[in-house]
Amino acid sequence: MTDTATGEVPQTIEGWYTLHDVYRVDWPRLKALPAERRDEVVAEASAWIAEAAAVERGDTKAYSVVGHKGDLMLVHYRESPAVLGSVERSFRGLDLADLLVPAYSYLSVIEVSLYEVQAMAVRRVMQSGLERGTSEFDAALADEFEKQKERMGGRLWRDVPEHGYICFYPMNKRRGETVNWYALPLEDRRALMRKHGSIGHKYHEVVTQIIGGSVGLDDWEWGVSLHSDDPLVFKKLIYEMRFDPASALYAEFGPFYVGTLVAPDALGDSLTG
Amino acid sequence: MTDTATGEVPQTIEGWYTLHDVYRVDWPRLKALPAERRDEVVAEASAWIAEAAAVERGDTKAYSVVGHKGDLMLVHYRESPAVLGSVERSFRGLDLADLLVPAYSYLSVIEVSLYEVQAMAVRRVMQSGLERGTSEFDAALADEFEKQKERMGGRLWRDVPEHGYICFYPMNKRRGETVNWYALPLEDRRALMRKHGSIGHKYHEVVTQIIGGSVGLDDWEWGVSLHSDDPLVFKKLIYEMRFDPASALYAEFGPFYVGTLVAPDALGDSLTG
Amino acid sequence: MTDTATGEVPQTIEGWYTLHDVYRVDWPRLKALPAERRDEVVAEASAWIAEAAAVERGDTKAYSVVGHKGDLMLVHYRESPAVLGSVERSFRGLDLADLLVPAYSYLSVIEVSLYEVQAMAVRRVMQSGLERGTSEFDAALADEFEKQKERMGGRLWRDVPEHGYICFYPMNKRRGETVNWYALPLEDRRALMRKHGSIGHKYHEVVTQIIGGSVGLDDWEWGVSLHSDDPLVFKKLIYEMRFDPASALYAEFGPFYVGTLVAPDALGDSLTG
Amino acid sequence: MTDTATGEVPQTIEGWYTLHDVYRVDWPRLKALPAERRDEVVAEASAWIAEAAAVERGDTKAYSVVGHKGDLMLVHYRESPAVLGSVERSFRGLDLADLLVPAYSYLSVIEVSLYEVQAMAVRRVMQSGLERGTSEFDAALADEFEKQKERMGGRLWRDVPEHGYICFYPMNKRRGETVNWYALPLEDRRALMRKHGSIGHKYHEVVTQIIGGSVGLDDWEWGVSLHSDDPLVFKKLIYEMRFDPASALYAEFGPFYVGTLVAPDALGDSLTG
Amino acid sequence: MTDTATGEVPQTIEGWYTLHDVYRVDWPRLKALPAERRDEVVAEASAWIAEAAAVERGDTKAYSVVGHKGDLMLVHYRESPAVLGSVERSFRGLDLADLLVPAYSYLSVIEVSLYEVQAMAVRRVMQSGLERGTSEFDAALADEFEKQKERMGGRLWRDVPEHGYICFYPMNKRRGETVNWYALPLEDRRALMRKHGSIGHKYHEVVTQIIGGSVGLDDWEWGVSLHSDDPLVFKKLIYEMRFDPASALYAEFGPFYVGTLVAPDALGDSLTG
Repeated sequence: MTDTATGEVPQTIEGWYTLHDVYRVDWPRLKALPAERRDEVVAEASAWIAEAAAVERGDTKAYSVVGHKGDLMLVHYRESPAVLGSVERSFRGLDLADLLVPAYSYLSVIEVSLYEVQAMAVRRVMQSGLERGTSEFDAALADEFEKQKERMGGRLWRDVPEHGYICFYPMNKRRGETVNWYALPLEDRRALMRKHGSIGHKYHEVVTQIIGGSVGLDDWEWGVSLHSDDPLVFKKLIYEMRFDPASALYAEFGPFYVGTLVAPDALGDSLTG
Repeated sequence: MTDTATGEVPQTIEGWYTLHDVYRVDWPRLKALPAERRDEVVAEASAWIAEAAAVERGDTKAYSVVGHKGDLMLVHYRESPAVLGSVERSFRGLDLADLLVPAYSYLSVIEVSLYEVQAMAVRRVMQSGLERGTSEFDAALADEFEKQKERMGGRLWRDVPEHGYICFYPMNKRRGETVNWYALPLEDRRALMRKHGSIGHKYHEVVTQIIGGSVGLDDWEWGVSLHSDDPLVFKKLIYEMRFDPASALYAEFGPFYVGTLVAPDALGDSLTG
Repeated sequence: MTDTATGEVPQTIEGWYTLHDVYRVDWPRLKALPAERRDEVVAEASAWIAEAAAVERGDTKAYSVVGHKGDLMLVHYRESPAVLGSVERSFRGLDLADLLVPAYSYLSVIEVSLYEVQAMAVRRVMQSGLERGTSEFDAALADEFEKQKERMGGRLWRDVPEHGYICFYPMNKRRGETVNWYALPLEDRRALMRKHGSIGHKYHEVVTQIIGGSVGLDDWEWGVSLHSDDPLVFKKLIYEMRFDPASALYAEFGPFYVGTLVAPDALGDSLTG
Repeated sequence: MTDTATGEVPQTIEGWYTLHDVYRVDWPRLKALPAERRDEVVAEASAWIAEAAAVERGDTKAYSVVGHKGDLMLVHYRESPAVLGSVERSFRGLDLADLLVPAYSYLSVIEVSLYEVQAMAVRRVMQSGLERGTSEFDAALADEFEKQKERMGGRLWRDVPEHGYICFYPMNKRRGETVNWYALPLEDRRALMRKHGSIGHKYHEVVTQIIGGSVGLDDWEWGVSLHSDDPLVFKKLIYEMRFDPASALYAEFGPFYVGTLVAPDALGDSLTG
Repeated sequence: MTDTATGEVPQTIEGWYTLHDVYRVDWPRLKALPAERRDEVVAEASAWIAEAAAVERGDTKAYSVVGHKGDLMLVHYRESPAVLGSVERSFRGLDLADLLVPAYSYLSVIEVSLYEVQAMAVRRVMQSGLERGTSEFDAALADEFEKQKERMGGRLWRDVPEHGYICFYPMNKRRGETVNWYALPLEDRRALMRKHGSIGHKYHEVVTQIIGGSVGLDDWEWGVSLHSDDPLVFKKLIYEMRFDPASALYAEFGPFYVGTLVAPDALGDSLTG
């Protein structure tokens, strides 16, 4: 429905809706449970997470969050906000949920922007050895562009990455009085995003990045999840990006949530010391 | 009472006062109720919502909200803040309300600005094939302008839309030190609003937009409700608008609340997993 | 004590100190009271409000607030913060207060600035038909200025207005890096306030405006109370003012509280649906 | 340790560390105590305050705060943060403390800046009739400067003022993108502070001002306490200062706490209506 | 992985991950414990802290915090966020933790930037008497640079300093619309950091500064801990830095937490008056 004839609004393609759902544990009440009862409560929740992870349409993973902002974060990928709401209510129906206090949540939908599809197409064609400015290059680029759009499906309808650490944060593009992303020409934004994406690409073997578009869904414009086995990569990647104009001039960041992946059958361990 | 001779203050026409009333469910206490008691509590609330929806002057609909910001949102349209206050207190008299915690609310009054009436009149006359700049065009425009004002009644005194999803958010027009909506000439504002409205118009078959004016009533200047059966439309519409100067330069946004419509007799389902 | 020789600091005259005191009702506990006990609790509070309204030095009125920001707002006018503190503690001694949770408050002192006195004097003299720039005009103005100062007593030492609705909000004059009210010459501020006041004057038959100065008393510079029988007037008046340079460029607004007047013997009704 | 050779960092001299400690009273629980028990609780706290006021090194006074931000504020002057922490813990050991909820606090150290010492020296020498620019003036100034530094002791190591009202607020000097106090030459800052101080001086008979430096100790750069018997003086003084460039351009203010002095044996009265 | 070929992103070297974990004590419940039970609770926690301090890989120290922001702060140095999370959960498993309420936390990783390594190398070579601009100077500098990197290990993998006071605060480098650290050339940033570091160096005998990098780990870019036996040093150091361009123009500060070191066997004293 977007009229790209205006040349200004970037197209996006969307996949799963995602809900990041953060809870604090009411430790004194959890600890006060008799051991047997506690095992039951944990077992029920473990089974629920395993089942939620096994759905055909979407995925669910649990994380143990470091610090006072939360203790347990559930990341759900599902087909609609309605289904996410139903998953959230189902979780709150568990006995474990009576020992949890909702602390934060974020609703978004996995998106790929054409900025990025184009950037990937260019990268591929350049790797093929063709020279920029030739008609062969342009033809290969157009061809690659279509292929990339098809390939995106695997990024839009995927499982939550398997890595041991997650770093989640929401962000906006700045709309300042003089520095305003949304007042830039599309070409400038595309160039900035291309450079920005190339930094991300340098890290692609050690980090998986999931971009959730959240304009009209939650309080920031995007919710970003980085998944890696090495938490230092979060710092290195984001710090390097901070010097890139797309971030240095135009990014505004919300709170950061860092957690470690908890396999369903390890939930009990994450609820004890 | 507004002196439009100053040429600066846009006229507005108002309809129902609206209250968006968001609650969190105290799930542990709700779950602890014996099934029979819980059915009673839900039945009383279902009947209340059905009755509130059936009033002659106004409407009420309930939504299930996704995430930690709230669980249940009631949207009331009534003739005055006093009546809305009385509806709110009546709701809090229900047994269900003892299991809810107030989380957010927003008071506004449905408004149509003349910016918009004029924009609709122009659209209509242009569709009639008359050429801009001719006296026939101008006469038809004046005529259409009056007709539009009459037609507005249906938008000012209407029911809450029937669509399955709601997206509510408050917003301001920016009053920055250099970028200041309220310091723009009326003609510039009108042109910006016309372009802005034309984006909304592109989506008019899939989304119903209710503008609540809230200057002097609540903490932001407007409370916007989008109603659609497809939540992706919220993202597409607002994202496209974000590149439009009226939003890119002048809009400031508060929190976003996304929910799914709950029919009165489905209230029980929205209070279980 | 203010040295007006600097020509920069506007003089002000002060009257009653005012406290706006907002509470949330703990509905579940209120509802859980046996009917008879509840009647006693309400009767005690009703009598207290009636007595507080009947004091010789000052006034008290109660309002029912719409939305989650509060349920009950008490507006006290008294001779000093010490007396206001004592009134507040007396209220908290009531049995009803055990069912209330403090949610907001605002301390200020009713003030009239010379900006305004001068504006009123000019208005009066102009209505007399004298021509600006003549010595007769100037003499009449000086005379009127003194009369206005005397007349102010009725505005400084008055009761809380009787109108059915209240709209309370705190505000600042902006001290931005380039747009700074306090860096303007007195003459510019006077001209801006005169124009600003003339908008208020247009509404003077339908709204009563009480300006509370709160520099050094609370978190904003002023606390404004509008009283009217028609809540739409709040929106019309403030929206019109927003296009006036004094607001468009220089005003910053805090939260808005809208409520309906509750007569002492109607307190019970305001605590039920 | 400060290298004033850079000519930029103003020297400061420090005295007592100060803690402003604000509590809300849990009125329902306080009221629920049997009268005799309540008298005991109050008597213990009264004795504690009297003893804390009588320490050799420092002082303590109690205030009753107006509004919802707090009910009881303790102001402690002591020799170190460690001792203040120990005083705070001792207070929390009282039975009264079990009926209080911590609401706010502020840690700072009484400071006099050389800006001010210099300003006082200049004032003294000018009062002596010597003419600026003469060598006699300069010699007298240097002499007076040393005397002032010695005299400061009485301001750095003093008791909490005896006046009936307190007004406490934290503040920063602005570090805006264009208006930045810390980027001004020392001479400009000195001139601004001299003018600023001269406004304070006009009120010196009716208000005592205690400046607490809090860079590195709490969230703002200074915590200011005004003490007076007339609360209107707070408004008059701060409002006049707001038009002074040091405040108009460079000051940022935090929350304001206004209270009335409570003598130790009047504590019971401040805990009832 | 950082491509320093761009000449823009400063390299950093990292050591222990650190968690600052702040709790409020629920004093009424702690005080309500029978003395014997309380001794047990404290003894268990004392032993836990002693053991946590004795780990081979990392360190733990406890602080008593002044004011309402918290009462007890634990500072943990460990090898990964996962281990920090496990330490945090272990602490919450203590009986004492049932009497604590999480109030704040901050996750970071000890870092040294090459800005600083270079600055230290320059300092050393200049102390050797070589003249800047000579080839001997440059060779000695290159040599010293390598030595410094090796020496950093002692700062990256160290224990929490032993000093009696801690001052912790998070901070950002400003990304304003015109004043933007991340848009400066690397050379400018290096020069600013060198000057900044030289102020810190003046205080190096009385304060130990630990810089935690937290980009991608928590809500600010750095978490700074100052450790000293004299709390006035915090004020003097940070105030002097505030006039340095690196802070004056580019630093943004979060909340400040000041506390006193609590030896494991003195924990009981810090939990009484």
